[in-house]
Amino acid sequence: MRQTMRTLNVALADRAYPIQIGSGLLRQPELLTPHLRQPRALVVTNTTVGPLYLGTLTNTLTATKIDHQVATLPDGEQFKNWATLNLIFDALLKHHCERHTTLIALGGGVVGDMGGFAAACYQRGMPFIQVPTTLLAQVDSSVGGKTAINHPAGKNMIGAFYQPRLVLADIDTLNTLPDRELRAGLAEVIKYGLIRDPEFFAWLEDHIEALLARDPAALTLAIERSCAIKAEIVAADERETGERALLNLGHTFGHAIETGMGYGTWLHGEAVAAGTLMACALSALLGRLTIADVKRVESLFARAGLPTHGPASLDSAVYLELMQHDKKVQDGKLRLILLDAIGRGVVDDSATPADIAAAISQRART
Amino acid sequence: MRQTMRTLNVALADRAYPIQIGSGLLRQPELLTPHLRQPRALVVTNTTVGPLYLGTLTNTLTATKIDHQVATLPDGEQFKNWATLNLIFDALLKHHCERHTTLIALGGGVVGDMGGFAAACYQRGMPFIQVPTTLLAQVDSSVGGKTAINHPAGKNMIGAFYQPRLVLADIDTLNTLPDRELRAGLAEVIKYGLIRDPEFFAWLEDHIEALLARDPAALTLAIERSCAIKAEIVAADERETGERALLNLGHTFGHAIETGMGYGTWLHGEAVAAGTLMACALSALLGRLTIADVKRVESLFARAGLPTHGPASLDSAVYLELMQHDKKVQDGKLRLILLDAIGRGVVDDSATPADIAAAISQRART
Repeated sequence: MRQTMRTLNVALADRAYPIQIGSGLLRQPELLTPHLRQPRALVVTNTTVGPLYLGTLTNTLTATKIDHQVATLPDGEQFKNWATLNLIFDALLKHHCERHTTLIALGGGVVGDMGGFAAACYQRGMPFIQVPTTLLAQVDSSVGGKTAINHPAGKNMIGAFYQPRLVLADIDTLNTLPDRELRAGLAEVIKYGLIRDPEFFAWLEDHIEALLARDPAALTLAIERSCAIKAEIVAADERETGERALLNLGHTFGHAIETGMGYGTWLHGEAVAAGTLMACALSALLGRLTIADVKRVESLFARAGLPTHGPASLDSAVYLELMQHDKKVQDGKLRLILLDAIGRGVVDDSATPADIAAAISQRART
Repeated sequence: MRQTMRTLNVALADRAYPIQIGSGLLRQPELLTPHLRQPRALVVTNTTVGPLYLGTLTNTLTATKIDHQVATLPDGEQFKNWATLNLIFDALLKHHCERHTTLIALGGGVVGDMGGFAAACYQRGMPFIQVPTTLLAQVDSSVGGKTAINHPAGKNMIGAFYQPRLVLADIDTLNTLPDRELRAGLAEVIKYGLIRDPEFFAWLEDHIEALLARDPAALTLAIERSCAIKAEIVAADERETGERALLNLGHTFGHAIETGMGYGTWLHGEAVAAGTLMACALSALLGRLTIADVKRVESLFARAGLPTHGPASLDSAVYLELMQHDKKVQDGKLRLILLDAIGRGVVDDSATPADIAAAISQRART
């Protein structure tokens, strides 16, 4: 098999770290060892990913004499809370982990978010390595340093900005990813093209079937380009005050779908796909985007097997109500990400509730 | 009454904030308002401090049209845990606080630590203003950005480095501080002179009675100088890897006393006083410090009404065992802060367990 590995360096103000992307990375101790401050680690994983990839990782750690323990969390967004986070703290303390021990998070977005937040807080900060095992986590959580848990009153309400020392995106772990989750991850990949990179969007139009077939070279390139775009945006705006908002294309609409339908009914990426097409419809309505471009976007999402319309059961009034509660609301004003062209996202706060309702209705499944 | 107010600017890499020190500060809205990003605040206090000073603060907020709510926590180190922290998150979410709402912590070290940690985590960071109401909090927690809660397996194990926008040290709040706590705070004040500033130590020798009598001018100067010394040290070493260790003079011995006697039996400052004299004894034993200087240190602590010896009931073997579990242990090696002179602290890892035991025994009350 052809080995593909790409390295992307994420440069932030006072920290920089590499993202390694490719096949067979979990078996390569030389990728891990330069980033450990002492030969000790706590691996955090969950009951789904653990049985699949924990053995590969711990074999690599054992081979290179890195003393390690494991904390296995229950799997699912419903466990992304303080009680589960505390399982990590308990393990860190039980094994007398020091502030230079490394926490390695092996799993999808929930494991990464909780592992990262635990690392941020343990003794006020211990080194952290991320091994994302879903496409969504590889293209989204690998960059930006967002970690969090949920509070009963809100998702991701309690967390920290905390950067990893290293991200290992081993595309082999995508081989066991359900098709539906692979497609949901592709929604975020397409988003990167839309907000910033028309050539990448065109490349995706040419390679969407290869990606769905999990072609290693195509996956590696798509992940690298996605992370690179996110890294550029985050580096310019680490604390999310300006340009970083572009990453939320489709997300304010999408969150309304996720909440309105009950979490877990729609996958995040599915909601983002439908939400992005609502943002496109609104962009066209406001004269920012051509109808032809909206069709191009719709066609790519459809080929990726993603929803192009919101759920029939959700009324536009419900969206507007839910969108008002979004974390991105500032001084009561709804700021949305729209497109001026494919590859050119913009922040807009000029759309009226009537405009927004019209766009939602256009994109409601009938 | 003579008004005294001093401003100290704490300059850190990417953040800077002022510490205002003086009398009547809680009644001056113009000190607060420039530091709020929106006219909203959540005040966090406890059941002891609230009845004394909350009304003064909220009157000031009301007078200047700052919308505010209050979260009142139970008082005591035993409540410095996740359950109490969650009371703050509950209040923030219940009142729909945004990421630009300010959290104001009104109280001693525990309120400041928990308020600061909640502010660090809420929506991954909201603005934070500290109003310390004990001498210890004014000279210790005001600078350094350390926030934390306890875990059943260890003190301050879960936390964040998070800087306030403003510290208001209103010395009027010291008028209700029990004598024993005032003296415990003075132990940290004396420490600053010992590690860094011989002139300040000499000034303390001249003014210890004025401080014990709560003379406003003396208190203001002592707090300002203490914060300035801590700020210098922290600015040079924000993440606690080198010079910042000097701030731990007396603390490794002191923690052993606190733990060995059961938390709350000795106040932190009392344990630091006895611990500092153990560090002095060890410094003398290793030929670093003269006996005359040890006597000078002992005399000042004694005049401040602080213990100059450890508890009779604690054996040096118990100290050594407890000190090995200190967070400052690195790769199993015990690093202690010693003195080369009054005003010159040093990091030492050359002392043998026998040396340490001898110093402890010299300073055990018989």
